[in-house]
Parts: sequence; C-alpha cells; structure tokens
Amino acid sequence: MLFFTQCFGAVLDLIHLRFQHYKAKRVFSAAGQLVCVVNPTHSLKYAPTRCAAAQASTEQGILSPCHHHEAAHDPQLVPCTCPLFSCPWEGHLEVVVPHLRQTHRINILQGAEIVFLATDMHLPAPTDWIIMHSCLGHQFLLVLRKQEKYEGHPQFFATMMLIGTPTQADNFTYRLELNRNQRRLKWEATPRSILECVDSVISDGDCLVLNTSLAQLFSDNGSLAIGIAITTSKVHSSEAEM
Amino acid sequence: MLFFTQCFGAVLDLIHLRFQHYKAKRVFSAAGQLVCVVNPTHSLKYAPTRCAAAQASTEQGILSPCHHHEAAHDPQLVPCTCPLFSCPWEGHLEVVVPHLRQTHRINILQGAEIVFLATDMHLPAPTDWIIMHSCLGHQFLLVLRKQEKYEGHPQFFATMMLIGTPTQADNFTYRLELNRNQRRLKWEATPRSILECVDSVISDGDCLVLNTSLAQLFSDNGSLAIGIAITTSKVHSSEAEM
Repeated sequence: MLFFTQCFGAVLDLIHLRFQHYKAKRVFSAAGQLVCVVNPTHSLKYAPTRCAAAQASTEQGILSPCHHHEAAHDPQLVPCTCPLFSCPWEGHLEVVVPHLRQTHRINILQGAEIVFLATDMHLPAPTDWIIMHSCLGHQFLLVLRKQEKYEGHPQFFATMMLIGTPTQADNFTYRLELNRNQRRLKWEATPRSILECVDSVISDGDCLVLNTSLAQLFSDNGSLAIGIAITTSKVHSSEAEM
Repeated sequence: MLFFTQCFGAVLDLIHLRFQHYKAKRVFSAAGQLVCVVNPTHSLKYAPTRCAAAQASTEQGILSPCHHHEAAHDPQLVPCTCPLFSCPWEGHLEVVVPHLRQTHRINILQGAEIVFLATDMHLPAPTDWIIMHSCLGHQFLLVLRKQEKYEGHPQFFATMMLIGTPTQADNFTYRLELNRNQRRLKWEATPRSILECVDSVISDGDCLVLNTSLAQLFSDNGSLAIGIAITTSKVHSSEAEM
C-alpha cells in the first residue's frame, strides 16, 4: 500500500514538473528554447560575511579568492562558488565544474539561449537558484538569489558568472529577460569572473535586481521564468565609456 | 559690478547646461535623439497618503480620481498629476496639458524617441523629475521619482502615464532604457492612464525600479540619461497572458 502511495506521489510530482515545463515553454514558445526547471538551494549554513575580507582587495583591483587562510594562498585557487553551502572546497578553475556537478548536483545545460524557471519564489530569504550553462566553449554559472539586503525587505538578484578569468569574461555579454503580462525587463552586462565573489557582485547591486512586487508581476504560480542568452561581446556603438 | 557678477553666473549656468546636453548626446549619439535636461521638482508639501483612499477603489476596478471631496464627484475630473505639488486643481482630461504647462512649467517635447536627462540625482527623497512627451497624437507624462519606500533606502521609480483614458493607454507601449558602462537595462510596458494615480503605480512597484547602487552605475556625474520610446502596441507573440 505504501509503495502505491509513493508511486502516486511520484506521478503527481512528474505531472507538476511537466506542467511547469509546459508553462515555461508557453512563455518563451517563440524562441523554441530549452527550458530548465531549477529548484531552490536552501541552506541554514549561510555565511553572509564570507567575502567581506576579500571585497576590500577586489575593490583595489587585486583579484583574490573569497576564502582566506593563514597560510600563503595560491591566487589561482577558487573557493567553492555554490553560494549558500559554505563549502570548504578550493580548487583550480579547471576543476570547478566537476566539483559543482558532483558535490552540489548543479545541472549543466547546453545552448546559447535557455529559459531558467526558478520554482518556489515564496521561500524565505536567503535562498539561491543555481545552474551551470555551457555555451560558446565556456561554462557559466547563473545565480538567482533571494536576500534581505534591508531587513524585512527581500529582493531578488540575478547574475551570470564565467567559470574563467576576468579577461575571458570580458569577451562575453549575457542577457537576462523577464517577459509577462505585457511587461518586459531586460538586463545586459558583461559576466563577472567566478574569481570575483558572487556575494560582492550582489552586495554592489551590479546585477538584475527585482523588488518582491516586481518579481510577483513577472512570476506565475510561484515560478519565475528568466530567458538567458549569451553572446560574444560587441562594442556598443551607442554607449559611452566615461 | 553686481550686474556683471550675475551675467557671469548666467554664462556659467549656460556652459553647465550645454555640457550636460553634450554628455547626453554622447550617450545616445547613435540614435540622434532629442535630449531634454530635466531638473528636479522638489517640494516640502509632499503628501504621500494622498491616494490611499483612491487605491482601494482602483484595485476593485473602479476608476476614481485621487482627490476625494465630500460632494458628489465627476469621475471624468482629473486631479493635478504633478506629484509633489499637492496642487488643489482639478479639471477634465482636455485641460490637463495646459494646466501642467502653465501652472507647473512642465516642458513638453515632440518626437517618438527622446532622451530624458535627469540632473542632481543625489538630492534627498522625495524628489520628482517630470516631463511631458507628445507623440503619436497623444501626450504622455514621464515621472521619475526618488522615494524612500523603506526608510533610509531611497529608490528610483520611473513610469510613463498617458494623458488619456485607460482604453486609449492600452494602444501604446513605452520603453525606458538605461545604457552605460557595458550595462543595459530596458523596461517595456503599457503606459497607465493619468486617471490612475502615479502614487499607486509607484507603490505597486509596477514600473522601472532602481536601487541607489544601480542608479549610480548608470548615472554620470549626478545625471541619469533615460532613453524613451513610445510605439503603438503590438501583440507580443512570445508573451503569455496568464
């Protein structure tokens, strides 16, 4: 009997997943893009000040990893970038992807344009939705974070990081697009390198930022569909570098 | 001597204005758009709860003006929409434009695409930057507001209102675009009618919202250039109306 109950639960889950997939497909149907349902990563081990020490040196133009040890540190070592896990792992850039896949079970998707469908947006902050994205010969990490920058006022922050160096990151442009209810919001920027801290990118606000009310306007039944596109950088003729 | 000092001050002001105009032109040079320098409208008479009574009825689908009087009210009368003036004026839709121009000295610009250059972004909240925009046979009101929705955390809200009815507003789409430092942020939506309260649009967060940090990333020397485009509505094929 218990077996049948479990089977029935699993079938219900599958139907729910299929329904979410279908909804996301409807949202971005014109593009025929790959839709990925991303469940939240929620951990009580959240350490918001993890990067505080590293931020000062990053602001001075010195690239340093987020974790600082008493011993001399190899600047090419990357700390685990899975933001809410407080994972003590460190490794070279080349082994970040296998670590994220194997240890943290983060999915990796292929294709220049995908739809990231974050579920359960109502969950309390801090919560992260994370996925890896492989295209144009590189791997990128998309992080959507719900965080209370100001107590009692959760906001959503979305950014794309290149699993590579800042010089490599400068060759790309990423676009995040929300599109629902006759409203459209687009954010385009150069991805940051994973050698910089995702925490500092978010605390600087240098990413797509959504208030709860805007997130609700764009979400459907507790899920937020974000269209993602990555291209190689072109010089924006209409843009001034001042 | 005083005369020459005043003349010198006026010349300096003109040079400053010309410089800002030049900078805005550089930002959006490719489009060859009209650039309008908009100085802030700052008033101590701010009455944030002005629309509170009207909001409840608007949410129930009943369109009502923001000012309520004890006597029976003509629903076609529009209160003065200049948000920070607490102006007691009321009038029919046809005379809103002359009132805003004559009483509040709000400029009106022609053209489907313009650049709105808001100066002095550092001024404390509440502050508004307002302009009228005439195109496609209608007049629109662009309001950029700096407001502390959460105490101590000012945000910028930008929205476009049609000086017309909600049915007329449904025929248009407006786009606001920020573009600087290899970052681009676009907001597209249907304009709201001026018969709805600008205060309630902003409190609902149904507009372009910028945190102070994002506003700083997009502004240059205390000025924020917003590209504005208005088009007649097309059905977004990639959009789902759920």
